[in-house]
Order: sequence, then C-alpha cells, then structure tokens
Amino acid sequence: MNHFLTIEGLTRDDLGSLLDDADEFVEVLHRPIPKVPALRGKTVATMFFEASTRTKMSFEKAAKALSADTMSFSPGTSSLSKGESLKDTVLTIKAMGTDAMVVRHTATGAPWRIAEWIEQPVLNGGDGAHQHPTQALLDALTIRQHFGTLDDLKIGIVGDIRHSRVARSDIQAFSTLGADVTMVAPRTLLPVVPEVFDAAVSEDLDDVLSDLDVVYVLRVQAERGGASVFPSLPEYTARYGVTKERFSRLKPDAIVLHPGPMNRGVEIEGAVADDPRALILDQVFNGVAVRMAVLFRLLGGEHAE
Amino acid sequence: MNHFLTIEGLTRDDLGSLLDDADEFVEVLHRPIPKVPALRGKTVATMFFEASTRTKMSFEKAAKALSADTMSFSPGTSSLSKGESLKDTVLTIKAMGTDAMVVRHTATGAPWRIAEWIEQPVLNGGDGAHQHPTQALLDALTIRQHFGTLDDLKIGIVGDIRHSRVARSDIQAFSTLGADVTMVAPRTLLPVVPEVFDAAVSEDLDDVLSDLDVVYVLRVQAERGGASVFPSLPEYTARYGVTKERFSRLKPDAIVLHPGPMNRGVEIEGAVADDPRALILDQVFNGVAVRMAVLFRLLGGEHAE
Amino acid sequence: MNHFLTIEGLTRDDLGSLLDDADEFVEVLHRPIPKVPALRGKTVATMFFEASTRTKMSFEKAAKALSADTMSFSPGTSSLSKGESLKDTVLTIKAMGTDAMVVRHTATGAPWRIAEWIEQPVLNGGDGAHQHPTQALLDALTIRQHFGTLDDLKIGIVGDIRHSRVARSDIQAFSTLGADVTMVAPRTLLPVVPEVFDAAVSEDLDDVLSDLDVVYVLRVQAERGGASVFPSLPEYTARYGVTKERFSRLKPDAIVLHPGPMNRGVEIEGAVADDPRALILDQVFNGVAVRMAVLFRLLGGEHAE
Repeated sequence: MNHFLTIEGLTRDDLGSLLDDADEFVEVLHRPIPKVPALRGKTVATMFFEASTRTKMSFEKAAKALSADTMSFSPGTSSLSKGESLKDTVLTIKAMGTDAMVVRHTATGAPWRIAEWIEQPVLNGGDGAHQHPTQALLDALTIRQHFGTLDDLKIGIVGDIRHSRVARSDIQAFSTLGADVTMVAPRTLLPVVPEVFDAAVSEDLDDVLSDLDVVYVLRVQAERGGASVFPSLPEYTARYGVTKERFSRLKPDAIVLHPGPMNRGVEIEGAVADDPRALILDQVFNGVAVRMAVLFRLLGGEHAE
Repeated sequence: MNHFLTIEGLTRDDLGSLLDDADEFVEVLHRPIPKVPALRGKTVATMFFEASTRTKMSFEKAAKALSADTMSFSPGTSSLSKGESLKDTVLTIKAMGTDAMVVRHTATGAPWRIAEWIEQPVLNGGDGAHQHPTQALLDALTIRQHFGTLDDLKIGIVGDIRHSRVARSDIQAFSTLGADVTMVAPRTLLPVVPEVFDAAVSEDLDDVLSDLDVVYVLRVQAERGGASVFPSLPEYTARYGVTKERFSRLKPDAIVLHPGPMNRGVEIEGAVADDPRALILDQVFNGVAVRMAVLFRLLGGEHAE
Repeated sequence: MNHFLTIEGLTRDDLGSLLDDADEFVEVLHRPIPKVPALRGKTVATMFFEASTRTKMSFEKAAKALSADTMSFSPGTSSLSKGESLKDTVLTIKAMGTDAMVVRHTATGAPWRIAEWIEQPVLNGGDGAHQHPTQALLDALTIRQHFGTLDDLKIGIVGDIRHSRVARSDIQAFSTLGADVTMVAPRTLLPVVPEVFDAAVSEDLDDVLSDLDVVYVLRVQAERGGASVFPSLPEYTARYGVTKERFSRLKPDAIVLHPGPMNRGVEIEGAVADDPRALILDQVFNGVAVRMAVLFRLLGGEHAE
C-alpha cells in the first residue's frame, strides 16, 4: 500500500488488517500517555483545499499521537492565490520535507492526481462526492466494536447518497466486510445508476427499519445541492428523518451512526442523537485510531529518503 | 478544582496557592530550556469563539512549556458554520482526545455550559463581560512580585468597569487577597449595581490618585460599547487618562498595570506605558506562568481516562 | 551576528560559512529522522504581516527540525486590529517567551525597527521590495551545490528587478561570492539607479543568454505593480520569458532558478520549469537547510534568559 485513496479494490483481509491495527491504537489512546514514538521525525502535511476543521484536527491528532510533526497548508493565503498550479504547490510542499500528505479537495480525483506527482504517501481526506476512505474505516471499526463482526449485518444508509462521498466509501467497506447494505433515499437522492453499488435500494425508510442492525444517517448537505433536490426540510424529516418514533421501532440492539456534523431536528432527532445506542462520539474517537493505523501502515518502519 | 471558570468563590488560600505554583513556573521559564515534562501526552484544545491572538498564544505557550500538545479549534471554518450545535462541537472535540479545553466566548457563561457537558477541565479564557480569571491571577502575581503581598494595598481600577470581565475578575481576586480596591469611572462606566462589588467607588481619578499603590488602567473597549457611553475619547483622556502629569502625582513606588492591548494616548500616555514602573510586559510574561499553574493544577498528576 | 536582516555588509566568509553550515543541515534533512535537538526549548515566533504560506512553512519546518517550538502570530485576528502599536505587539510577543522572531512585512525596514526594540534575534523573512536574505542564501546554496563555487559564474537575473527584494538580496550575495551578475529587464523594470548595484545591465535577454551559467527567473509580480509597467503579459513573455526555445540556446550545463510561485507560461515556459536543469525544487529544499543554518547561528549554543 503506497497511498490511501479509496476503499475500492481493498479486500476483506486488507480492511480487516487495518481495523486490527486500529484496535491496537484504540488501546494506545486509552493509555495515560496516549502517544507512541512510531513516526518520530516524520512530517505529515495536511492540505485541505476544502475547509474542514473536524477531519483536519483528527488527522493532526493521529499524526501527533504517533509523534510525527504536522505542517498545515492553507490555500486561502497561499501561493495558489498567486497563480501557482496545484502541481507546483504540491511539489513545493513536498520539497520542504513532507513524508505524507493528507488531501481534501472539492474536485473528485484530486488526491489521485497528487499521488501521480509525488512518491510520498497521499491520504484521501475526502474528494468531491467521491471517496472518504478513512471515514469508512472509522465507521466499520465502530460497527465491529459493537457487533464483533460486520458479517450478515443489515445496514441501512439513509439520506443523500447521490452526493455523499461517505456513502460511497461506506457501501464498499461494509459490503466487502460481509454486511448487507441497503441505500434508503428518495429516487432523487439515490445514485444515478444504483446498480453499480453492491447494495439494495429502498425508497421507504419505514419499510426497512425493523430489519436493520445499523442505521447510518447521512447529513443533509445543503452545501452540496442536497437542498435543491428535496422539496423542503420538514418533508425530508417526515419521510427520512430518524425520529424518536422511528428509533423505537428498531431492533433492541440496533445502533445509529452519523458522520457529523449533525443537523439535529432534520435528519436525526436530538433524543436519538443522545441515546446510548447512537455511537456518534465513538465514531469520532475511532477516527483518530484509524488514521493512526493508516499513517502507520504507510510510513511506519520505513525510512524517509 | 475540576475547572477554572471564575475567581468567584476562590479563597485567599486557593489564590495564594496558585500564585505560589506560578512563582515556580516563573523560575522554570527563566531556565535555559524553559520546559518541564509535566503534561507530556496531554492535549490542550483552545476554542476561541471570540478572536484573541494574545491570550490564545499565551495559553498555547503555557501548554507547550508543560510539554502538552495543543489543538486549535477555529470556529470560522468549522462545523459550527454547517449548523452543528455548540454542544455537539464540544463533544466532538472532546471525543478526539482532549484533556482540557480553554474557551473564550462572547456569551457570558459559555464556559460553564461547556463544563456541564464534559468531565475534562474547562478553563475560562474570557466570557462576555463576565470573567477572565487567568488575567486576574497574572495581575495579582505581578502585584505580589512587586510588593510581596496584596494586603492593605490600595488598588484603583480605572475605566470602563461596566463592560470589563478583567475588572470583575480582578476586583474579586485583589479583595480576596487583602487589597482595598476602588473602582474609578464615570457613573456610566461603573457597574449598574456597584454595591455588589467588594470595592469602593470614585468618579474622580484625581481625587484618589495620590493614595494608590496600584493604578490598573482598563482598555477603552470601543468594540464592547465603551465608546458609546462616553462623549469623546479626548474627554475620556482628560478625566481618566493616566497621563504623565497624573503619573507624577502617584506615590514614588506605585505601579501601573494594563491588560493590553493599550490605546496609547487614550487611557494611558505613551511615556507612562514606557516607564519602568509600568509593569505591563511583566504581566504578559506572568500570564504564561499562571496559565501553566492552572493547567498543571487541573491536569498534573492525574491520568487521562 | 545578532540578527539576520540583510545580505548587505556580509563578507564572502560570512556567506561561505553560513552555506557550509547549511550543507551540514542538508545532510541532517536526508537522515531517516531528519531532526536534531540543537534548539530544544527555544521558541521561534513567525510574524507574517504580509501573507506567505510558503516562506512561513519553510521557517517553521526549519525550527522544528532543530527541535524548537514555534508560535505563529497572525495580524488578521490580533490586537493590532484593536489599535495596538506594532512596537507594543512585538514587545508583547517577546514577553511571552520568544527566542527569535521571523518577520515578513510589506513595509521596507520593518524588521530593522523590530530589531531595535528587542534583544532577541530578528530574521527578515522579506520586507517590502527591499531584502529577502534567506532567499539569497538558498539560491546561492543551490548554485554552489551545482557548480561547486559561484566564482566567475555568469548569472543573469531576469525580470522585474525594480520591485523585487529577491533580486536585491541575490545580487549582493552572488556578487560577494564572486559571480558576475547581469540584470536583464526592460528599463521600466530595472532599478531607478542601476549603478548602485554590483551588476551589469542588459535590456535584451537574447543578447546575453548564451553566456549565462545561471538564469534566475523572477516572478512577474502583478501584486507589486509589475503588471502596470509592462504593456501586456504576452509581450513580456515574448521578450523576457524563458521559453523552451531560449532554454535550448543556453550552455549545456547552465541551470535555471526561480523563487516561486511560478507563473507557467508567463516568465517561464512549463517545459523549462520541468527540465532537470531547472533546480526550482532544490531551491525549496535548500530553503529549509539555510533557515536552519541561520536559526542555529543566531540561537545555538546560547542560553535563553
């Protein structure tokens, strides 16, 4: 593994092995001094061409917990605004002594382009509506911690799947790990060609609700056009919101996940978000552990240069 | 002590003991390598919902001098702007592995709300016009360094006390430590109910000047409405500005403090600010030491999780 | 050496000795753990009053590679915007415990002013159109690495010399190190009094091209008024752009340098920028090494206090 760009193409063993490593880093993160010297002297650059405090902080925490240094590239005040090409920017940051780059970009495929330009590992921190592979790992880890396995679990992913990189990565990871995934959304928010996904389709959440072991609630992403494809937020909530009432119809040990940030009262009711079976903060915690696992896999045991 | 939110309720011994610790960290900060490993592996998050380079840098310096890592949450580019609630933001940052949070917020009481949501220590870095307790500690430390004690010192706090969190915290700290505090301001800039403060009141600086051991000059805070309650800045300076002439009427060993940033020529004349008896830069230096003392008190000797 | 403000006044030995140190740090940067403990416990503050991601990251990387801590002062959200004077800002940052300040400022001479106010070392990270001394060092190092010496090399600096701090610093460094420098630009982009520079002048790039060992291509700096003194970018490119065709007329071992960020297709054609004899990324890499050399020279072996 030279880069970590996508869940696509990773085998059940690949994913299982990364989750096993993440389990060990969960243990590290529970120690009094939650830090290991594994990547001392390495420098991880975060290059977030699309703003995201949450994911950036999680990657930086993961890097520091491995004793790596971090460098943060902010496109706003940078040479990009002086007309420099993305490639020249990337090669410049690399030349300063970067051992790995975490890239988030609004453009689908941007991390792949960057991975063609440099030999150092590139980690996809989310590209367009395409992939968000560390999110899929942290989601899978959270589910595996709860159920012991993903095999034969029934997982419903609810919401704007068409515009969601989280959904794309999650469906691939969950199904590869043995789960039965159902995409639950109105036709307008389903993928244009749903058949290419290894997942069933339902337009009616109430129809599938009682079968699910995991309800994965997607954010209503107004900023990606989600708002424009659904008549109104109250209508969305009425049909697809994970309300307290719907929550009560779930199996007794079913869990609820959400990638955050939540719109309480829209896609998830506050009381559901606060229920102990909503493992949303476990997802955040696990995010640091899986990012440590990926950074360690890509950089550990090697030597720079 | 689980959190550090306010000076209110702290006893003379509480304050004295924190200042004693701060004295030791002053000594650390004068070493060739001004750093101790006390909080290695801990992570201190700064969450400044109101901009402040100065206080944020001071807290970060304090954290690093204790060998803690820092995480900086910037509300501007964050999930808050995507509709996330403050509580969810806080719980998310906590879930990433934060051992303490330093919070500055325009809303009075915000750090208390946050302290209800998490078990980790919350440090109030300034809330609205309410409290700024580490400022009070650094001010008290600076006075104690100079006079050996605050007992029976006459301290005049001059300026817009009504809108000042610094004044609120300072009055409580100084009077608890034995000083006689006088609030010096026009009626419009005094607290609405001055009687609740353990301090005398004067509307005439020239009247009390020659009795004071400490003149604490508040900033004219145009951004908090100070400008709107006084006719003009020149009139303010004429009546309450600490000019060279007024400085000359102070006792020979009286000192001048200011929380910064100064408006030279408004509340303090440049020549006064530059006098050796203006201990404004000592205050800044002591700020790092008292923040080390508070962080160490809250996090030291404990183990995360 | 107390500060590092300008190339002016440095002798051949001064520069050679800094480059020798930089060579050693190049070696450090190629180690598996590219880090030395030389400045452990020191704090380097970056104070960029003019935005620059690239130079700031390079200085921070250099500081961290020497195990120093970094503090970043951002004027945008700071006390400066609350009316504080530059001097008070500087003294405040210093009082927090800063061992060195890296200053970039739009105003010519600002780093000198700051150096008058504090005893700690000040490093000029670029002031107005005046000096950028670490850029000159990294350029000289890159040339010396390639040719072994600068003695008798013919170096053409091409472009908007009038508004370029890079050109000013480079001409002084290159000529002090024994090179023959020619300023190549239209009259409007030459210094107003070119005679004060230790360099020849040519208005015709094609005239001098085949004699050059080094072509130093300056950025067309639209943001500094460069655009207004030349009729159009295509005309600039036609007369002064380092095109593939012009590159083919260089000596076989001549090299091309550029301080970045590049405007591909304007001052330099893409194919030239990508040629192995364009050492632009070596310049970036060397930037970290020379900044380590300067920081180490200023701070190493001393003790804070």
